[in-house]
Amino acid sequence: MPSYTPPLRDMQFVLHEVLHAVDDLKQIPAHAELDEATVNAVIEEAGKFASQVLQPTNRTGDLEGCSFDAATHSVKTPTGFKEAYRTYVEGGWTGLSIDPQWGGQGLPSTLTQVLYEMLNSANQAWTMYPGLGQGVYACLAAHGSDEQKQAFLPKLASGEWGGTMCLTEPHCGTDLGLLRTRAEPLPDGSYKLTGQKIFISAGDQDFTDNIVHLVLARLPDAPAGSRGISLFVVSKFHLKADGGLGGRNPIFCGGIEHKMGIKGSATCQMLLDGAVGTLVGPPNKGLLAMFVMMNTARLGVGLQSLGLMEVAYQNAVAYAKDRIQMRALSGPKAPQQPADPIIVHPDVRKMLLTARAYAEGSRALVYFCSVQNDLSLFHPDAAKRKAADDVLALLTPIVKAFITDNGWIATSHCLQVFGGHGYIGEWGMEQYVRDARINLIYEGTNTVQSLDLLGRKVLADGGNRLRIFGAQVQAFCDEHARDEGMREFIEPLNRLTQQLTKLTMDIGMKAMGNADEVGAASVDYLRVCGHWVFAWLYARMAQVALARAGGGDPFYRAKLATARFYFAKLLPEVEGLTVTARAGLAPLVEMEDAMF
Amino acid sequence: MPSYTPPLRDMQFVLHEVLHAVDDLKQIPAHAELDEATVNAVIEEAGKFASQVLQPTNRTGDLEGCSFDAATHSVKTPTGFKEAYRTYVEGGWTGLSIDPQWGGQGLPSTLTQVLYEMLNSANQAWTMYPGLGQGVYACLAAHGSDEQKQAFLPKLASGEWGGTMCLTEPHCGTDLGLLRTRAEPLPDGSYKLTGQKIFISAGDQDFTDNIVHLVLARLPDAPAGSRGISLFVVSKFHLKADGGLGGRNPIFCGGIEHKMGIKGSATCQMLLDGAVGTLVGPPNKGLLAMFVMMNTARLGVGLQSLGLMEVAYQNAVAYAKDRIQMRALSGPKAPQQPADPIIVHPDVRKMLLTARAYAEGSRALVYFCSVQNDLSLFHPDAAKRKAADDVLALLTPIVKAFITDNGWIATSHCLQVFGGHGYIGEWGMEQYVRDARINLIYEGTNTVQSLDLLGRKVLADGGNRLRIFGAQVQAFCDEHARDEGMREFIEPLNRLTQQLTKLTMDIGMKAMGNADEVGAASVDYLRVCGHWVFAWLYARMAQVALARAGGGDPFYRAKLATARFYFAKLLPEVEGLTVTARAGLAPLVEMEDAMF
Repeated sequence: MPSYTPPLRDMQFVLHEVLHAVDDLKQIPAHAELDEATVNAVIEEAGKFASQVLQPTNRTGDLEGCSFDAATHSVKTPTGFKEAYRTYVEGGWTGLSIDPQWGGQGLPSTLTQVLYEMLNSANQAWTMYPGLGQGVYACLAAHGSDEQKQAFLPKLASGEWGGTMCLTEPHCGTDLGLLRTRAEPLPDGSYKLTGQKIFISAGDQDFTDNIVHLVLARLPDAPAGSRGISLFVVSKFHLKADGGLGGRNPIFCGGIEHKMGIKGSATCQMLLDGAVGTLVGPPNKGLLAMFVMMNTARLGVGLQSLGLMEVAYQNAVAYAKDRIQMRALSGPKAPQQPADPIIVHPDVRKMLLTARAYAEGSRALVYFCSVQNDLSLFHPDAAKRKAADDVLALLTPIVKAFITDNGWIATSHCLQVFGGHGYIGEWGMEQYVRDARINLIYEGTNTVQSLDLLGRKVLADGGNRLRIFGAQVQAFCDEHARDEGMREFIEPLNRLTQQLTKLTMDIGMKAMGNADEVGAASVDYLRVCGHWVFAWLYARMAQVALARAGGGDPFYRAKLATARFYFAKLLPEVEGLTVTARAGLAPLVEMEDAMF
Repeated sequence: MPSYTPPLRDMQFVLHEVLHAVDDLKQIPAHAELDEATVNAVIEEAGKFASQVLQPTNRTGDLEGCSFDAATHSVKTPTGFKEAYRTYVEGGWTGLSIDPQWGGQGLPSTLTQVLYEMLNSANQAWTMYPGLGQGVYACLAAHGSDEQKQAFLPKLASGEWGGTMCLTEPHCGTDLGLLRTRAEPLPDGSYKLTGQKIFISAGDQDFTDNIVHLVLARLPDAPAGSRGISLFVVSKFHLKADGGLGGRNPIFCGGIEHKMGIKGSATCQMLLDGAVGTLVGPPNKGLLAMFVMMNTARLGVGLQSLGLMEVAYQNAVAYAKDRIQMRALSGPKAPQQPADPIIVHPDVRKMLLTARAYAEGSRALVYFCSVQNDLSLFHPDAAKRKAADDVLALLTPIVKAFITDNGWIATSHCLQVFGGHGYIGEWGMEQYVRDARINLIYEGTNTVQSLDLLGRKVLADGGNRLRIFGAQVQAFCDEHARDEGMREFIEPLNRLTQQLTKLTMDIGMKAMGNADEVGAASVDYLRVCGHWVFAWLYARMAQVALARAGGGDPFYRAKLATARFYFAKLLPEVEGLTVTARAGLAPLVEMEDAMF
């Protein structure tokens, strides 16, 4: 069975030493009193919950899965899930970053993201449930009417009620413009919803007395396509005038999916059979309301893969130090034993370091984006909000796609370190791989992310956001241009900036001739951008580590070694990617559809 | 549920039009009468069994898995497996390439490999069972005494008995030198074996009345390490003087593993509690006897991933043509429908073409190696046998590691084409990914393959085999040097040959200073070699297709388009790999063990 130790010092290194997150977050009036000690105390407590309460439910949750009772339309979650949720709620974790007016603790959402890294390391499937409640809270806090806020926010803040996002239908996932669920106005101003939804995480569960469903549907007079979609809030139980629960609203779970992974997360088919809901935000603007919270949701998926990489890495390292097999090619390293621990083998180290470097780069990137998210929402200076939002908009598809692609690579490497034992359930590694696979798909497939990045965030924007963010990279390079020790990082980073600028222009030119050139290059392009951003973050981490490694602390020497590994062994992937990105559309369309 | 159509024409294209396999195989006296019509007839029949009988058992086999009855030490295979095996045996498929003196049909083993591609497309887990019988046959045919041959070969040939390879123990997989199972001589010349084996595929099953176990164990006076390992044959049931089955020999299945995939294949813990066996080959030479059949076994793993890629590709194409979602960026392609089929999206095409190109390149490579395997064993001219063996020895680790790594990439891409539906069991795609994962591990992990390639087959050999095979590549390039149409393939192939030669020398120089440099570069090196071999095979396929595509046959145009895709979008990976291979050991050892 895998174990998990919250990487507190690594998290603090990124937050405090690299990003100086508290300095940024204190500029938000609500967080003016924030200090590092508070942050550390919260993280430490969160780590205890994740490692001591939640982690032990991960493997049993996978084995047992969820079960569905058709007679009562109800889902039973795996043993221990409900109890872990109760402890989580009692600890006040659901309200960590929620506005005190709704009962929360009002800490920056960055702290919730750090919490979620650890929850995901401990049990990604379980973490979906509170994550969805959090998402529904955010959406209603931003778009709900006062009445809706009063009715739902306190219960979501306390974790007393759960939530879902009902978007996907059998014939539409990416293309929500095709959705068919209907909403008919009722005389009292509410709506009657009818239709079928699929892939609804936490659509039913046994954690909470009530579930707050956000449902996308069409009004009778709605225009076709994505401009005719409205957002509704539909409570599993009708609410009485005093806010208490009344009768059952006909929004039923009709079955659950049998999936490759995240088996403890109930993925529900939902049937709306005249369920009554109220409109959230203006009619026909439902997608906009959902998209506002997309940044957070996509950071959330990045956190899922980050969490899995971290825990898979920890366990693979422990195994590689313990398992003895063969001698080092250069001669015995543990002559007192019948064979050397496999960590002596260079490729085992390479697999471990790949997982580590992708995990640590991902942590730096997600935490950076989380701070930008807080700043973009709450900084008192509108220009600062805008700047943070621009950077966040650019980096969000990278967080979602680059980190989850890396998570797939990294967890698979960690499995491989275990050899045959990695393929066996009891060691737990294969579960991480299976769980990691969904992250490349949901919240917008990684292809969709790449189109968002290249098509919308870069080209449609005339390269503006890229320049804004690029200026930060450039400033860092300029600042350390004369630092001899930083040369090994600054030089390749500068070179990559130039490569990326040129690549962007080349693809942009091609795309003017044929818009499909965007789709032919976007996935490779996103990966080049991801490496560029990681190279910048690794250079920043290396700079801090260099300044402190002189003291001989192995923690900083490890940070430096990881940065060097990243530049030497992972970053060069861009050499092939820039070639394939440029190869463009022609090699993809010579094969006619009928010839496939 | 996925479907499967045997790709008869693609297989025939490789065998007949590209490799001219029959011309080569006819040089073997036993196959002097072979013709293409016979080959085609066999393949077509085999395809019927695979697609009509076997394929329907794949998903149910995964869902049901094997079960184990501790009271009787017996394994029950999933519903339908036993019946499919009976049909297989009745069709004479177990004996397809077996010597007629033992009851086989005596066709080249290349044909069995083609059969196995299809069996693996249909059901990889099931295919393990006859595959192991085949392996035991090959080992005993090569190393068994006359008595052993008489006792076992006819029953293995007919499929009446199954087989296993009992190598791995809990503390040793890669490092068989550590194994502990003991064999004590008995007065009658047989041996009493005691020990524990794990990960024994088909260790017990309900297909056959008897199972022929090949077991590695140590004699009492054996030297330590890998030079003290002997090979034994241990029958599940004692054999009576008349060859019939007597009492139970104490080699018991003690349990089965719960795995990520190939759930229909029983992966057994085996307990030898004084089981009686006889020695195969000379004492202490057991590993040598096993290694002789390693080439075939490793080709077999390549075939497993080839089979999975092919079937995953077929189903992903069907889905991509059927599923409508979003419009092409360049404007509607199916304006009569509410959205375009997703095959219009460039990245969907790229994922499909990646799977296709890796599948077709793999087919060309495995079939080429299969012919070399037949020639290396049975060509009447010793020099020809040697030449084929050299090429086969070089390419075998590439088959095993490059194809299975590609299989992991390709099946994952095919899953991704299905979006969320790819993650759901009923569509079958996630099973292909889970099944594909084991192929990177067993029969020597892919890291072990890379060390075999770079360390043993290239460097320890002074580059000799690389030159022998390189001469074939060079001859092809020279032959088509003036062919304008072939320039787009010959030029990059020539360039890659030069890159590889230089890379080999660079790593060789480094390795003279520190042997661990081999392990630091080998995985990247193998992948560069894999692309080089694929580039050669794609150039050969393109050359045939170019000559025939003028007729407008979309089959040949598709071959050409696939080759161009491969050169444009997959081959450029070498640009990064040559950099990371050269980055060597330093970035892997700066991190001290304690710092991980």
